[in-house]
Formats: sequence, C-alpha cells, structure tokens
Amino acid sequence: MEPLNVTNQISSILLVGGTHGNELTGVHLVKNFAILNQQNSYSSFIVDYLIANPEAVEANRRYLECDLNRCFKLSELNDLDLDNHEQLRAKEINRLFGSKGDSNTSSNADTKTDFIIDLHTSTANMKTNIVLTRIDSFHLQLAAYLKKKLPEVTITSETDLMDDHYFLESIASKGVVIEIGPIAQGCLEYPSFETTKKTVQACLSFVELFNNQNSSEIKRLPDELEIMSYHSRIFFPTDDSGNICASIHPSLIGKAYPEISHGDALFIFFDGQKVFYEGEKTHLAFINEAAYYDKKIAMCLCRPQRYSLKSCQPVEYK
Amino acid sequence: MEPLNVTNQISSILLVGGTHGNELTGVHLVKNFAILNQQNSYSSFIVDYLIANPEAVEANRRYLECDLNRCFKLSELNDLDLDNHEQLRAKEINRLFGSKGDSNTSSNADTKTDFIIDLHTSTANMKTNIVLTRIDSFHLQLAAYLKKKLPEVTITSETDLMDDHYFLESIASKGVVIEIGPIAQGCLEYPSFETTKKTVQACLSFVELFNNQNSSEIKRLPDELEIMSYHSRIFFPTDDSGNICASIHPSLIGKAYPEISHGDALFIFFDGQKVFYEGEKTHLAFINEAAYYDKKIAMCLCRPQRYSLKSCQPVEYK
Repeated sequence: MEPLNVTNQISSILLVGGTHGNELTGVHLVKNFAILNQQNSYSSFIVDYLIANPEAVEANRRYLECDLNRCFKLSELNDLDLDNHEQLRAKEINRLFGSKGDSNTSSNADTKTDFIIDLHTSTANMKTNIVLTRIDSFHLQLAAYLKKKLPEVTITSETDLMDDHYFLESIASKGVVIEIGPIAQGCLEYPSFETTKKTVQACLSFVELFNNQNSSEIKRLPDELEIMSYHSRIFFPTDDSGNICASIHPSLIGKAYPEISHGDALFIFFDGQKVFYEGEKTHLAFINEAAYYDKKIAMCLCRPQRYSLKSCQPVEYK
Repeated sequence: MEPLNVTNQISSILLVGGTHGNELTGVHLVKNFAILNQQNSYSSFIVDYLIANPEAVEANRRYLECDLNRCFKLSELNDLDLDNHEQLRAKEINRLFGSKGDSNTSSNADTKTDFIIDLHTSTANMKTNIVLTRIDSFHLQLAAYLKKKLPEVTITSETDLMDDHYFLESIASKGVVIEIGPIAQGCLEYPSFETTKKTVQACLSFVELFNNQNSSEIKRLPDELEIMSYHSRIFFPTDDSGNICASIHPSLIGKAYPEISHGDALFIFFDGQKVFYEGEKTHLAFINEAAYYDKKIAMCLCRPQRYSLKSCQPVEYK
C-alpha cells in the first residue's frame, strides 16, 4: 500500500441528489440527511448538501433542457454561449462547489469540495452500482471498502477514463456516483432509500478511515478489485422512420449484469420474431434503462477487469 | 339477458395509445396494430387508430401542460378559454372522433366512433386493469367476457359514475380503458405489450359477438360480475413545507389490490418510524403510482362490489 499524502486529507464532502430530477431516492435522502444531521458523527470532515436541479425535481423530469450530468466538461463550463437551464446551473454548481478550471486544481487547499457523492437511480436492475470516473488509490480503496462492507455492490467504470469527465462529481478532485436500481422514475421505495443511505454512510465511514493515515481497516483491503468496464452499447432495432420497433427480449428484463453469449436472444419484434446476439461473450448492464430510450440505447456491454490496489493498473498489464 | 337493440350495433372502433406520452406500451401497440392491419380479421366493424398526444410521446412525458385524460368533460370541451396544448388537443380529438356536445349523442347514427379502447400503463401492480366509467349492459358484458377469457383481469370503476366523464374514452357512447402494470414510465416490456395486445383482441372479439344479436357465448356469461369500486385515496405524509416525507411501507410495494385492515403498516418515515392504517377493512390499488406523486396520492382505496348483468345494478340493491 502506498503511503497516503497528507495533502490528500478530505475535509469537505458534498452529497448531491436530484442531478436527475425524476430520481427521487437521492432527493429525499439529501433532504433527510440535512434534517437528521448525520454528519455530526464524523469528526474529520464536514458534509454539505445539494439538490442539483431543483427545477427538474419540481417538474419530476430528468432535466428541463439537457442532461445536467453531461454538462461538466471544462470546455463546456468555459463556453459562455452554452446558456440553457442546465448549462447555466452546471456553471453555478462548479462556481459554488467545484474547482474545475481553477488554475491550481491539483491542490486540495484551493478546492471548495474535496469529495462529491452524487446519488442516482436506474430503472434497470443495477443493484448497488458504484460508478468510478477515475481510477487511483483513493477511488480503488473506496470501491474495495464498499464492496467489502455492503452486499450487492458492483463497481463500474467507463473504459476511457477521463480527468475531465462530463459528470457533476468530476468538479471535485474525488468523486463517486451511487446508482441504485431497479426503481421506476418518479417513484420512491424504502428499500432503495435504505440501500442508498447505507452506501452513503459507508462512503463517509471510509473517508473517516482514509483521513486517519494508519487505518488498519484500509490496510486490510484486498490487493485486487474487479471493475466492470463499459466497452460498447446495443441500440434498439428501428423502423424506416427511425422509431423503436422491437422490445428487449423478456429473458433479459430485470437481470443484473448477465453474461451474454453468441446466439442469445436480445430483442423480440412485436410479431414475435427475435434478434440474436452475435458478438463475443460479455456482460450486459443498463438493460431497458428508461432514460436511454431517447438515444435508443437498449443496453450497455461491459466486462470484468481486475485492478491492483497497489499499482492502480489493470492486473493484466502488470 | 335483455334483448340487444339493433341501433346498438358497433360499426366503428377507435384504438388509442399515447393519451399519456410516457406510457409506451399503448403507443407501440397502436403503431404496430396499424402495421399488422389486424382489424381485417373482423367483419362487423372497422378499427381506426390514434396516438392521442404525439407531442407528449415525443417528449416522453405524461403531458406537456395538463393531463389530457382529464380534459374531456363537456363543460371544458365547450370552454374556449381553455386553450393549452392538451385542452386544444382534447377539443380536436372530440371533433374528429367524438360525439360529446353533439345535439343527438344518444343516437349511434350520428357519432363518429361507437367504441373507444384507450391504452394505459401503471407503475403500480394493477395487473390487467379494465377501467369502466359507465355501467350498463354493454360494458358489464364486455368486462365479464374479458374476465372470463383472460387471466389476471380486474374490473375497476369509480364509485361516482358519470355520463360526462373527463376521460378520453367518454367522447364515444361506449368506451374502456385498458391499464397494464407494473411497468416503469418510459419503458417498454414485451410481456406488457403482449398482455395489452391480447386484451385489445379480446375486446374486438367481444364486439364481433355483440354485433351478432344471438351470440351464445355472450348469453353464457355469468349472471354477476365483481367490480372494484374506488371509494377513497390515501395521501403521502408531508412535512411542514408540504413535501412528501415518508415512503410507502415495503410490505405493500408491488402488491396487486391487497386487502388492508386496521393496524396494517401504510408508510415508513426515513428514520424508520411507521404509520398504520386506521380505517375499515378494504382493498388498495395504485400503490406507488409515479403519476400520482404530483398530487401526493400514495394509494387508492377500493372495495369489491357485485353487479347483476341483467339489472346492471349492484347485487345488494336488488
């Protein structure tokens, strides 16, 4: 385990709900975290709270004009011509809580928030999906800790990891997305709420340990961590007019990260005809995610990849 | 069985999807019914098709400005001051397909559509919910036929039945709402599609029999039919600001028309405290329907009521 740098100390955490306005679990958790003042039980940091897109929450929609959680690339934050509701809100959130575009973003001393936890839900069966956009010692340790402490945790990441991601959590030097599913948009269910709450509490407990340079619990984390890396997407079949003309095969509905092999059924047309998978063996995620219908994405492809917590590299590349 | 009147012959049927823009099952069924031209297999009537609110479908929202399926009361159709997107669309749909407000609505000869089938979905577990707004010989026979032919059919109605209902299907002299659930808004699932399709086909088969004055199958329908009649609603607990501050108790989530008794848990606050039901034994429906969150309705109360197919009256009042 590499020694932790004192300047990596996390003193401010931002808990975010309502980045997508119709994902109610995070909205209610943030509102109730504020009421419960649960941050008082931690001594090494403070927690601030944010409903990221209150107007979208009020409208019970993912967003009003564009997806807020795609608005945080530095080039877009700097582009004054981008001025719709979510683009302006992204600039405001970065100004209030973020450090993107500051001249000295590499130093925690100048960032307003050290760590962002952004709460999401999915209509797909993603169980407890911990989304990483950065793979380094902190994020791998955090993910390994969550996987050890909580049932049903899957760690996912994009294959092309970016320093300058478009997610809200990218405006701080450290961040994570917690995404629970399946739950319908605009609905609140207590088990999802409880799972999200426990995952947030585990994140905060980890930071408390992380801030203690000699945490034996962090030292006892496993050497390697499996991360599901997205590598492709499968789109819905469409008719001549570009409209979706088939549904996902019932054998896949409700499945969490199922393995799929050449010849497995993917889609069923409304007359009963099927479409079969023709690629290499892999896994599926975000099966039938309502929020992806506008882009006609039916599901995403991902594969397990083991990372070393020491080198922070894929194990195959060691 | 009372003899059927020749003037009751149904010659035109309108199949409607997309009255709520984010209930995709009906939208896709209507589009595919048009493609499949399945109406050709019936000889006594023609079927026309309508996407009721294409702009809301495009936006993947229940509605743009107000709920279209609450806009069809005669007084509102006649009110020229009501001119938002859905209010104008309601007037247009009534002009094109309806008969509400015509001087001679009692005669089928002057109505543009004899029977409307309006397709909906619910995020609640409503199974195959056949919604009646009118209880007469035709609608009771139709409902009894569907209940006999299809599994998981429940017939529901409002207690205060109105000739001049606000639903779209009320603009024709005969109408029914088919509502399948649970399915998330903005999602399409093949089983829901198939169930909806089979229910529509059963409706059309019934009309074919109904148009044949001597159908032995209609004559063999049971004497009585159970209808779940709504009699009240339960609202979410709210905080001092009027915001929802509890979720439905997990024991109720996903249940279809469960019986509820005094002392059963209804809600759970985010700190784990519970709220218990204190009323008389009854049944619940629309448990955690996403579309009702804006009105803070958590669930509806309903009770079974047996109707005589002969007298078209509740059996108790015989």
